[in-house]
Amino acid sequence: MPDVLFKVDLTKPMDEQETPGHNRWHPDIPAVTSVNPRDVFRVECKDWTDGQVQNNDDPSDIRDVNLNRVHVLSGPFWINGAEPGDLLVVDILDIGALPGAEWGFNGIFARENGGGFLTEHYPEAAKSIWDFYGIYTTSRHIPGVKFPGIIHPGLIGVAPSHEMLDKWNKREQALVSKDPHRVPTLANLPTPDSAVLGSLTGAEFERVAREGARTVPPRENGGNCDIKNLSKGSRIYFPVFIEGAKLSLGDIHFSQGDGEITFCGGIEMPGWVDLHVDIIKGGMAKYGIVNNPFFQPGPVEPHFSEYLVFEGISVDEMTGEQLYLDAHVAYRRACLNAIEYLKTIGYTGEQAYMLLGTAPVEGRIAGIVDVPNACCTIAIPTSIFDNDIRPKLDGRGVL
Amino acid sequence: MPDVLFKVDLTKPMDEQETPGHNRWHPDIPAVTSVNPRDVFRVECKDWTDGQVQNNDDPSDIRDVNLNRVHVLSGPFWINGAEPGDLLVVDILDIGALPGAEWGFNGIFARENGGGFLTEHYPEAAKSIWDFYGIYTTSRHIPGVKFPGIIHPGLIGVAPSHEMLDKWNKREQALVSKDPHRVPTLANLPTPDSAVLGSLTGAEFERVAREGARTVPPRENGGNCDIKNLSKGSRIYFPVFIEGAKLSLGDIHFSQGDGEITFCGGIEMPGWVDLHVDIIKGGMAKYGIVNNPFFQPGPVEPHFSEYLVFEGISVDEMTGEQLYLDAHVAYRRACLNAIEYLKTIGYTGEQAYMLLGTAPVEGRIAGIVDVPNACCTIAIPTSIFDNDIRPKLDGRGVL
Amino acid sequence: MPDVLFKVDLTKPMDEQETPGHNRWHPDIPAVTSVNPRDVFRVECKDWTDGQVQNNDDPSDIRDVNLNRVHVLSGPFWINGAEPGDLLVVDILDIGALPGAEWGFNGIFARENGGGFLTEHYPEAAKSIWDFYGIYTTSRHIPGVKFPGIIHPGLIGVAPSHEMLDKWNKREQALVSKDPHRVPTLANLPTPDSAVLGSLTGAEFERVAREGARTVPPRENGGNCDIKNLSKGSRIYFPVFIEGAKLSLGDIHFSQGDGEITFCGGIEMPGWVDLHVDIIKGGMAKYGIVNNPFFQPGPVEPHFSEYLVFEGISVDEMTGEQLYLDAHVAYRRACLNAIEYLKTIGYTGEQAYMLLGTAPVEGRIAGIVDVPNACCTIAIPTSIFDNDIRPKLDGRGVL
Amino acid sequence: MPDVLFKVDLTKPMDEQETPGHNRWHPDIPAVTSVNPRDVFRVECKDWTDGQVQNNDDPSDIRDVNLNRVHVLSGPFWINGAEPGDLLVVDILDIGALPGAEWGFNGIFARENGGGFLTEHYPEAAKSIWDFYGIYTTSRHIPGVKFPGIIHPGLIGVAPSHEMLDKWNKREQALVSKDPHRVPTLANLPTPDSAVLGSLTGAEFERVAREGARTVPPRENGGNCDIKNLSKGSRIYFPVFIEGAKLSLGDIHFSQGDGEITFCGGIEMPGWVDLHVDIIKGGMAKYGIVNNPFFQPGPVEPHFSEYLVFEGISVDEMTGEQLYLDAHVAYRRACLNAIEYLKTIGYTGEQAYMLLGTAPVEGRIAGIVDVPNACCTIAIPTSIFDNDIRPKLDGRGVL
Repeated sequence: MPDVLFKVDLTKPMDEQETPGHNRWHPDIPAVTSVNPRDVFRVECKDWTDGQVQNNDDPSDIRDVNLNRVHVLSGPFWINGAEPGDLLVVDILDIGALPGAEWGFNGIFARENGGGFLTEHYPEAAKSIWDFYGIYTTSRHIPGVKFPGIIHPGLIGVAPSHEMLDKWNKREQALVSKDPHRVPTLANLPTPDSAVLGSLTGAEFERVAREGARTVPPRENGGNCDIKNLSKGSRIYFPVFIEGAKLSLGDIHFSQGDGEITFCGGIEMPGWVDLHVDIIKGGMAKYGIVNNPFFQPGPVEPHFSEYLVFEGISVDEMTGEQLYLDAHVAYRRACLNAIEYLKTIGYTGEQAYMLLGTAPVEGRIAGIVDVPNACCTIAIPTSIFDNDIRPKLDGRGVL
Repeated sequence: MPDVLFKVDLTKPMDEQETPGHNRWHPDIPAVTSVNPRDVFRVECKDWTDGQVQNNDDPSDIRDVNLNRVHVLSGPFWINGAEPGDLLVVDILDIGALPGAEWGFNGIFARENGGGFLTEHYPEAAKSIWDFYGIYTTSRHIPGVKFPGIIHPGLIGVAPSHEMLDKWNKREQALVSKDPHRVPTLANLPTPDSAVLGSLTGAEFERVAREGARTVPPRENGGNCDIKNLSKGSRIYFPVFIEGAKLSLGDIHFSQGDGEITFCGGIEMPGWVDLHVDIIKGGMAKYGIVNNPFFQPGPVEPHFSEYLVFEGISVDEMTGEQLYLDAHVAYRRACLNAIEYLKTIGYTGEQAYMLLGTAPVEGRIAGIVDVPNACCTIAIPTSIFDNDIRPKLDGRGVL
Repeated sequence: MPDVLFKVDLTKPMDEQETPGHNRWHPDIPAVTSVNPRDVFRVECKDWTDGQVQNNDDPSDIRDVNLNRVHVLSGPFWINGAEPGDLLVVDILDIGALPGAEWGFNGIFARENGGGFLTEHYPEAAKSIWDFYGIYTTSRHIPGVKFPGIIHPGLIGVAPSHEMLDKWNKREQALVSKDPHRVPTLANLPTPDSAVLGSLTGAEFERVAREGARTVPPRENGGNCDIKNLSKGSRIYFPVFIEGAKLSLGDIHFSQGDGEITFCGGIEMPGWVDLHVDIIKGGMAKYGIVNNPFFQPGPVEPHFSEYLVFEGISVDEMTGEQLYLDAHVAYRRACLNAIEYLKTIGYTGEQAYMLLGTAPVEGRIAGIVDVPNACCTIAIPTSIFDNDIRPKLDGRGVL
Repeated sequence: MPDVLFKVDLTKPMDEQETPGHNRWHPDIPAVTSVNPRDVFRVECKDWTDGQVQNNDDPSDIRDVNLNRVHVLSGPFWINGAEPGDLLVVDILDIGALPGAEWGFNGIFARENGGGFLTEHYPEAAKSIWDFYGIYTTSRHIPGVKFPGIIHPGLIGVAPSHEMLDKWNKREQALVSKDPHRVPTLANLPTPDSAVLGSLTGAEFERVAREGARTVPPRENGGNCDIKNLSKGSRIYFPVFIEGAKLSLGDIHFSQGDGEITFCGGIEMPGWVDLHVDIIKGGMAKYGIVNNPFFQPGPVEPHFSEYLVFEGISVDEMTGEQLYLDAHVAYRRACLNAIEYLKTIGYTGEQAYMLLGTAPVEGRIAGIVDVPNACCTIAIPTSIFDNDIRPKLDGRGVL
């Protein structure tokens, strides 16, 4: 077992851990330790909410979750020798649950508290608990499905430079300013409330808490990409923006559907991740990388052979308004179409919604140029269901 | 070989075929023939432009393409017994090229004539010709790549009802009215210019040509979904809106990347499709289908084991503006990131752009709730390249 | 469409074709034509029996098949520049059925006429006819299954040298001499009866017919390997034993299970194959190849995600005798175990036997060193069945 | 984490464990504990040799291994309610290495001590050590390869009845009697030497040690099948021969090639296995199961997209003798062909041999009826190598 370079005690909040992590992006958050290229090490992580959600049937903890607390991350790790312009190579060697914590949660956030992709349709908070049985998971709240997890860190990234952080804060402020009272909010701006900033204290804590970008969105540094295929065996190439790179991670999902449509999110869990790091000196220029990591997915994710695929187009389902190549709306309509289908086999809308958020469903951009309609699809592997969910051709012949 | 119920002569335009097809959606376009549930039959198709593009190195035909001519479709086929509320089941049993026409084309449309997904970056027309060698294709215009096709009809759909057609025309007119002089246009409205409407003539032709929806976008009836995985062996379930369903298809692609980002489009080709049809009576209500087909993909598409995946987020690359969960922009940035990478291995931007439009690349919606950034990814199978395109870790150790 | 370098008329036997092929291996059978490295060309093939089996329900043609007539091959093709010591590179670009001949047959040979893998258990002749619907096939004789074909030439090979041919004849004669009257025979020795030898006539025909090796077994030259995964897109590397290599092929199967256990065999069919050839000069020494081709499988064969796998060990099922690491017996017992299971879901033994011979089942050597039992497995993809054939756990809980 | 029902201390031999396991098959070995249908529990296992092999570069421990000690198994577990005629359903939920023991070994046994599949060619002992990095493994003794493990218990089975045990001993004795002094031996007969029999002592130990079948071969009860795909997520159905079924397991492999050709074997390791059990009452008759388990493989094994496949036929490579459909010899020759190829890219024969024993190579029975030659294949995934090992076509054109 690799050395554990970041330990967590699940009974304590992140700021009370022996070595606290952080929940904001800022170049001045001190590294917890340093590693060398080619080191292999283990990182333990809390769940993204810092333990706010319980293994029970009551969704009130989902409803009342403090979003200023998210995402509690493990790190930052200083990579010796990493300099701006390099590529930091990170191998996710393995991921798993912590002993005694073999369960996770999925929740639909209430419209008033963050909402989710379908918040206009499902505005109330809901929760499903998922138990892990080795590679499989099932939920007492969504019966009749079992699937293998494609376990992954929803969030992994490097620290921004001061200039980059400044750019983030400005552009997000500009967005919020367009509709500052919108519910849900257009973006989560920096706030000292509930900030955790590693070993920082005093005035430095105050400054960084005021400036530090929220971890909610993915950005140029990677971050909360929620890419469900960034699983065991993946190799990620991060652009390096500051000396030491300062790698952090968290928000482990046992499984997630593409889009993470319930916002909370995949099957959220604490856990551990084994990492291997390396550096490609000057790799950003060499490979044309200015922003955003890229990666090679790992080889052990399940490949399903049968899917039901639902389509959606960019016409608003509420107003009938024709939008212009809006892949967001097209994917929303694909999800809604899938949910209507799943309702005919016995699920409630909320169950179907959470199923699409947790199961290994694929969300694709099929067509993005056929004006004015984007076409997106959502593909549901049929073998995750106990029963055959495909339509029946009653008088079916040889075909 | 199944009976050929729709034949094409590649030397003639669609309106001069013995039995002409059509290039507008309208319930009153007469069926070319009728088929019974469980029939198996072959349909030949022209390429979507009706033969406007030549197998040569000159992109001027792409630049000057008459978009009012597209998409020339084969059909409509009347399905005996199909009634509104049913599901029409269509199996794509096989697809292939017509003898002597084993090549296809991809093109970047000029900004002035339709543009493409990256038209602000690549506003000039370009063309690549792809030769078919059995299951494989290569292009003299994009050396160093070979891949198996995931051949599919870019466009397959049923006729709308009059009410549905009326709704389409109204909502698209409303969109265009927001910026009627935009280049490229926000939507293509009905126009009699270059309309082909099967056997219609005279006043009825005039009326239908004036009302008929353009085939460019996908809509509730399916249509130009450009789903690259709707390949051999797929089973599609269409909602039926009018008696007889009136199935039409065309726009065959030898291969396409998710998004069909060059607009023209995949590897465009004429060809044949073998179909099997069936009906689920009352299937729309039974399975919760109001709009949009759904489908099961076929079993013989290639499954690649290694990919390079590029990410993009919803920040405008020109202005730096922060957009709100805009999957369109996020996918555009993922594509641009991939292109920059491909440029470092020797391709021009235009070649890389056309490669992403034609090769079996996967476009995914990774995260669509992490305000304000959508995260989209584009995954390129590495085995399509002659050489290993992955980054090199020079002093690499065991891992 | 590539040039057709070998045409067949399905209404005529191979020796009455305009350009006859051959059904023996001999270096002196004249080439039908020559091709250059990097040529692409089409080859049409008769079914392996030369049309002895009809599309009907009567297995008497299987019972009475003339095995001296098999396998009628198309070729030989002279590859310009190929010399002993080279590797001949053959790409199988595509394969298909001939128009009007979209069906195939599978048969259990009678014990008196060749038998099959389970001839002691199923000694009587039987036949199943399979109809092709694009990529799929079904059989009126084995209801309830549908599967995509992994179409392949059961037989493809180069000509032996005289020395190699001599070695073959000697070693096979020695085997037969151990039990010359065994039924079925231990090997099929050269016989002029029903020989077809291309354009040879007279004394040269007599000599070659007397010497020519039968095409039944695979040998150092490739030949009747019956490798079900040598399908579309495969690249084969053949050792070259004589000048011009003299490539021949035939015995096309729409589908076959590993082992081709009924002997006749897969789903046998006439058809066409598109080939591309190339040469690696001196490739045999360079890559350590003395005998036997090697290959890269193509990318478009179906990958099933769910299988039922049956095991067998090397204990004779009749006598209870313990054999020593006998993979033949172990695979036989795995097949018999699978058949017993399939009988419980409604198939006769003969149907199940033919199903294992035709469907894309995988036969594996699991363990070959655990004295004294070899362990072999046969894996049946469950999605080929209309119904779920897996055992039911009646009071099943979450798992 | 499930309750650990069987613990091992890697510093002690199996007979000195707090609860010892066993290394013989006998119905009278007492169960270590009982479990209920639908229980989930963890079982720890020692490596098959009981710790005889060290993590160093000296193969003398492989050479001198005491084979009377193998395989040390964890169990037996009594399944409450299981009776003869039932099917015992065992889910392998997950498998892993024990903390601090993240390495394994592969060895070629010396001809004098068990040998291996290619013992006539490689008669000397050899050893390779494999380090685990999450899902991956590499070996300092076989550079240039890295692959994900398909981790599995090489051995899992239920106890035989007394009648079945008696039959085993008789038939294996009969085999040995044919050549009692053969090296390596034809079968390993019961021997009290190094027997471990759980809690048995005294006369009962003596009797059971004298009667107990060796664990080396797979048999009707499952046992040492060495099926490399019996990995995470697999569901196995065992016939039940005695009350309580008495399930045992061990011989964990991090990875293995089909055939386990070096005999020792795969990448051998201690570890833990999480199991779930259930019962199908009367399942043997219901599903036609008399002997041998059957199973559904799990969903998370890697699927490679590119292979090099080598073929072999049943002609003895030493004598040139033609054998009759001998799949053992055919697979041996396929392995030898693969090794010759691997030698041209820089491996020694021993390295290549161990690579085929450890990497996820597939061994197939291609043709088993084409008298007199069986054809077997071995498929090597090319992506496990650092470099592209495929033959180069120097002057290669578009294809």
